[in-house]
Amino acid sequence: MAKRYTIQDIARKAEVGVGTVSRVLNDDPNVKTKTRSKVQAVIDKIGYQPSYAARSLRTQKSNTIGFIADAVATTPFAVNLIKGAQDAAWEQGKLLLIVDADNDPARRERALESMLEREVEGIVYAAMYHQEVTLSDAFRSVPTVLVDCYSQDEMYPSCVPDEFQGAYDATKELIRNNHERIALILGAELESIYPAMRGRYQGYCEALKEAGIDLAPEFVRVGEGNAHSGFSETSALMNLPEPPTAIFCCTDRMALGTYDAVKAVGLSVPDDISVIGFDNQPVIVEQLHPPLSTMALPHEEMGHWSINTLLKPTPIPERQVLPCPYIKRASVKRLEV
Amino acid sequence: MAKRYTIQDIARKAEVGVGTVSRVLNDDPNVKTKTRSKVQAVIDKIGYQPSYAARSLRTQKSNTIGFIADAVATTPFAVNLIKGAQDAAWEQGKLLLIVDADNDPARRERALESMLEREVEGIVYAAMYHQEVTLSDAFRSVPTVLVDCYSQDEMYPSCVPDEFQGAYDATKELIRNNHERIALILGAELESIYPAMRGRYQGYCEALKEAGIDLAPEFVRVGEGNAHSGFSETSALMNLPEPPTAIFCCTDRMALGTYDAVKAVGLSVPDDISVIGFDNQPVIVEQLHPPLSTMALPHEEMGHWSINTLLKPTPIPERQVLPCPYIKRASVKRLEV
Repeated sequence: MAKRYTIQDIARKAEVGVGTVSRVLNDDPNVKTKTRSKVQAVIDKIGYQPSYAARSLRTQKSNTIGFIADAVATTPFAVNLIKGAQDAAWEQGKLLLIVDADNDPARRERALESMLEREVEGIVYAAMYHQEVTLSDAFRSVPTVLVDCYSQDEMYPSCVPDEFQGAYDATKELIRNNHERIALILGAELESIYPAMRGRYQGYCEALKEAGIDLAPEFVRVGEGNAHSGFSETSALMNLPEPPTAIFCCTDRMALGTYDAVKAVGLSVPDDISVIGFDNQPVIVEQLHPPLSTMALPHEEMGHWSINTLLKPTPIPERQVLPCPYIKRASVKRLEV
Repeated sequence: MAKRYTIQDIARKAEVGVGTVSRVLNDDPNVKTKTRSKVQAVIDKIGYQPSYAARSLRTQKSNTIGFIADAVATTPFAVNLIKGAQDAAWEQGKLLLIVDADNDPARRERALESMLEREVEGIVYAAMYHQEVTLSDAFRSVPTVLVDCYSQDEMYPSCVPDEFQGAYDATKELIRNNHERIALILGAELESIYPAMRGRYQGYCEALKEAGIDLAPEFVRVGEGNAHSGFSETSALMNLPEPPTAIFCCTDRMALGTYDAVKAVGLSVPDDISVIGFDNQPVIVEQLHPPLSTMALPHEEMGHWSINTLLKPTPIPERQVLPCPYIKRASVKRLEV
């Protein structure tokens, strides 16, 4: 069998990015004529044909898309990701065949096989938290997009939350309300497998730096993502000689513990301590007393993105970041200056 | 077209229940010989053929099951229902085609059509809370089972949580711990559309009655299912001349408000007030301080039941109730007597 050229091969030969090649293949007008000619010359020379993947989208009519999810059940808050994908699929007349691979690589492979037998038009692979994943080569035989995750080889279009921007905006919001003593409770060590925590730490640091506020090492705490650790880390913060006036918790669950710890020392949210969470888990944020201001993970938007990207003639294998908007409720108080 | 006889027709003619007919059709050994002969005689006389539904299960091989859910996205805690169905389907070599009909009857119909086009072997229709539903006749053309809901005509096998037993066991647990002043906070009016609240109210009353405890009307409160109403109803209870020593909250979200209200008057859970919730929503029960003892909704079990029932040769159109187990955590204290 002759070598199958990929979009990456063309990019290398034409000395442009894969995004540019994709835009040429998709007749995107935003490509300079000179660049387009260079790319087209390579395409003509090697006799490039869009892959099975891209072709099947045009010719096959199963109108079914495979959705492989990892561990939906243990992270119910991510269910909006499925909702977003379903809504977008429904609008385009497609149905989703869904398998929860439950973090089991063997099940993931068998799910893919079963989906290919049913001639799905493409695969959405969704992780239930932002992470790096390694997919088998079998996924290259069908258009595949990754949601809330990415592969190291960047072979697939992927989409993740903008953790940096989320944390930056949260910290900025506290600064705008005249807070300067702002603590951060991370949900895991920076060296952990969670890219979310690294991005959020950097966003926090950048917002402080821009405002000319020195980073106070005693204000940066590492919890475990749950309410229990939110409680203990907040208790430690409250015991400092000069405690913070605001706490940015990297998960809503930790914020739940933060609320309890603040009450335990006879203080209140937001009168004495302002709190911003992360995740926008409805069952927590709306039920807390007072309701928690937090940064929303763009689950539904990532779901939309996955289907809309998959159904493009030639999806671009690059990583998208989607913003985490600030959802204002009642846990931040403006300080008088 | 000749009249299509149904399993109900046979039952009526043979003067037995539909369950018995189903067991005969399924060659279940637990049918008396005399009964079997009577049923078989009717079957032979009318020339009964198992429906398209039952036949397609034997002959068609799409190995795909349609799962139509209502409003998954707004009730993430019900996601275990999907997980249970997926696991059971996976074990039997089936995949689920899932559509969230989003409480829109038109979308529900179109989902069914799309699934029939894809030759699904059957349909699971899942509501996200216990309710009565009305399905169009189109659902009768394919094996259909109902989960966390039932149809008034009882034409389909259905499965709902045992609300009575759940509330009865919760109240019993408090009585076993020597509580007698036990309040109940309902999540909605008894006359509402929620059969769950009626069942739970009856279970609470029955447990009190068995223990010889008089029902105190001032201890029965009606909230709105959310933390805010749990807070206000608990505050009202704490202001009674003789407040309760235990509160059974019909939703975990209300229990969250109950915790806050107890703390607000300077008391603590469980030292001063014992609390039991209902639903077993992970994000609440495990994160609360102390962790909440609660009654679990059998979502995963209902999911298993749906697939296993659907794949029986002739599912019995009757309503199953599945128990709501008590999940012990740390919110109930034993009173000294």
